[in-house]
Amino acid sequence: MAATGREFFTVKTVSEALTGFRPPHVTGVEAVALDEACGRVPGAEVRAPEALPGFDRSSVDGYAVRAADTYGASESIPGYLRVVGAVQMGAAASVQGGPGTAIAIPTGGMLPGRADAVVMVEHTSEATADTIEVTRPVAPGENVVRFDEDVAAGAPIAPRGRPLRAHDIALLAAAGVVEVPVHAAPRVTILATGDEVVPPGTPTLSAGQVRDALSVSVGALVREAGGEPSPPLIVSDQDGALREALTVALAASDVVVICAGSSVGMRDQTGDAVAALPNSETWCHGLAIKPGKPTLLAQSDGVPIIGLPGNPRSALVVFRLIGMPLVRRAGGWTVEPFVGTIDARLARDLPSAAGRLDVVQVRLDLDVGVADPIFGSSALLSVLTAADGYLIVPEDANGLSAGETVEVVPYA
Amino acid sequence: MAATGREFFTVKTVSEALTGFRPPHVTGVEAVALDEACGRVPGAEVRAPEALPGFDRSSVDGYAVRAADTYGASESIPGYLRVVGAVQMGAAASVQGGPGTAIAIPTGGMLPGRADAVVMVEHTSEATADTIEVTRPVAPGENVVRFDEDVAAGAPIAPRGRPLRAHDIALLAAAGVVEVPVHAAPRVTILATGDEVVPPGTPTLSAGQVRDALSVSVGALVREAGGEPSPPLIVSDQDGALREALTVALAASDVVVICAGSSVGMRDQTGDAVAALPNSETWCHGLAIKPGKPTLLAQSDGVPIIGLPGNPRSALVVFRLIGMPLVRRAGGWTVEPFVGTIDARLARDLPSAAGRLDVVQVRLDLDVGVADPIFGSSALLSVLTAADGYLIVPEDANGLSAGETVEVVPYA
Repeated sequence: MAATGREFFTVKTVSEALTGFRPPHVTGVEAVALDEACGRVPGAEVRAPEALPGFDRSSVDGYAVRAADTYGASESIPGYLRVVGAVQMGAAASVQGGPGTAIAIPTGGMLPGRADAVVMVEHTSEATADTIEVTRPVAPGENVVRFDEDVAAGAPIAPRGRPLRAHDIALLAAAGVVEVPVHAAPRVTILATGDEVVPPGTPTLSAGQVRDALSVSVGALVREAGGEPSPPLIVSDQDGALREALTVALAASDVVVICAGSSVGMRDQTGDAVAALPNSETWCHGLAIKPGKPTLLAQSDGVPIIGLPGNPRSALVVFRLIGMPLVRRAGGWTVEPFVGTIDARLARDLPSAAGRLDVVQVRLDLDVGVADPIFGSSALLSVLTAADGYLIVPEDANGLSAGETVEVVPYA
Repeated sequence: MAATGREFFTVKTVSEALTGFRPPHVTGVEAVALDEACGRVPGAEVRAPEALPGFDRSSVDGYAVRAADTYGASESIPGYLRVVGAVQMGAAASVQGGPGTAIAIPTGGMLPGRADAVVMVEHTSEATADTIEVTRPVAPGENVVRFDEDVAAGAPIAPRGRPLRAHDIALLAAAGVVEVPVHAAPRVTILATGDEVVPPGTPTLSAGQVRDALSVSVGALVREAGGEPSPPLIVSDQDGALREALTVALAASDVVVICAGSSVGMRDQTGDAVAALPNSETWCHGLAIKPGKPTLLAQSDGVPIIGLPGNPRSALVVFRLIGMPLVRRAGGWTVEPFVGTIDARLARDLPSAAGRLDVVQVRLDLDVGVADPIFGSSALLSVLTAADGYLIVPEDANGLSAGETVEVVPYA
């Protein structure tokens, strides 16, 4: 009989889970080419092999000069300098200049040996064929990017434990670093369970069957967190099937996700199968979150296992909040990403029980700055797909009131 | 001579560029498998081929009953119902129930024909081997997800023009949609220009040379915007070389990016090369943005062309603000993504000229809620890599004051 269990959850709060559940397993480090490295997480700090820039460069179009030669120059009493040559891009200047001379130089050009500043072309005019008027003085170093001003040789240019951004990639390229040691993408096995569950490609359903909505969508969130999801695997409710699937999964995974049949029977089966794994520890079986209470967090040999609620909406909410950080940490993240939010006025009261974190889906109307909560059973995916983002009613709040300003996390 | 040009820019504001520069070219539509569809942009609205769920389902573990049989039940005067069977997951009930009976049902189970509600197991207890006590009444439909409550057959389940999110993928899978018509990823050709520019893999630089920092980093931002960057291409400053490269690029690209040598000479050359393209229109040559003024926006046969400033930092700032929206629109986006921000107090005054948009890199200290601006030449990439995000001083502001609350866009 399916409905005889009276289960005692080991319930924890979301904050406790985020700070307290920290399985130690982290992927190894591999080298990747720079053009594959954006979003990857260095396994070691990267240092600049050489100084950047490697020479004094002009930061403007103008004339390389000795700053002292321009002192006192003004619109009314310009200084006069003799133009003795031009710097070509990508080459050392063929002339070195000297007192009273100017050398034309483009942005990025290499400063000639005896110049110490650049006058912007806008502050000059041609007086004769080989003479310019300078109408504004420059200080030594002005309009010049000095040797090693961007990065000194040996200085850190990318930290470990934080994913590389496009501009990190730019700096690495500039420094000639074309291969980066990064953590391997965590392999995440996703097990869908339940005799009622059939692959999404099943054209016609028999009575009582449902298609596997979670493998492919949790897989998408795994990728978003930098992981590599397994091909979909549906595990039957048959005795021992889950335990066997878990054993196989753990041998080849850095994180394991169980999309649980959410029945009491399945919960017991999941809990039992996890408890039977080698060196396993069940950290909680129940989270103080709505939706998503029947969540299991465990580890085996240091590899995190997350058992998601059976309702797809609850499962996706929990995976976003709890599962993605687990994937990121298994992939070497030592920081959490910044989460930007959109301020909006709440359109309606939101009741909530203290001690429980509520995740509320909202529509955003930014023209009027309003966030409108979407209600509905945690079984309904359409509540999620109608949303522009979500807000969190924190554990210590007794709900929120209409008109309050709330912070909405937008969906990308 | 490099420095003789006095250029007249056609300068536009960033707002004008974002709203006014709208080349019409959009990629074609192709079918992709569902597990490759997250982040892709449907080229047509997707509708549900069938209702979801396809049958009345229990949303709890409990007993399927006729609601009328539970009326008046309470802790002190429970109702008694005869248990005549159990629903198995993934199958129709083998018994149909009837007055005075209950059928055990797990979450997600298919409601037997004559039941109209489910009593949660928590509100029952076993009285005898085949009888339960019910201690709370249920209304018709209670704890049931009705046929088509999530989605009606034929209803839209994914809009066109907005990238698919993980939960859209879940709903598509549930509905049996395993292939989605999406816009092809825009092919973006990135041309690095300049005789001083050498590939990042160049181990030792000659005097005046710099490595190409932009191709690979702009490429990373292209991918972030859903595009597919070309392999790096460095174009010499030689007469006609850029024009030829542009002609080749346009034949095979949905967006073209020129990482311009930023010298006056190069600017002229870029502008001339673009102007010579078939059906070309130069929309602006200069943006009221700091850093990033020498930006060119043009189109040829409806394909957008963006000429980036030569300073890598300026180029990345401009590409993030102006280039990524161009790539998204070429890839079929008809909306702009929501941008979440982090509120912080500004640590220092930020002077700015009205009429110009300033992009200021900041470090965030969220423990104290402070955003600390990072200053430095627009040639310095280290200003970007040190930042946690950026803030915008809008065109209509004369700078910002220390202590003001600012909205920081965090880097992912």
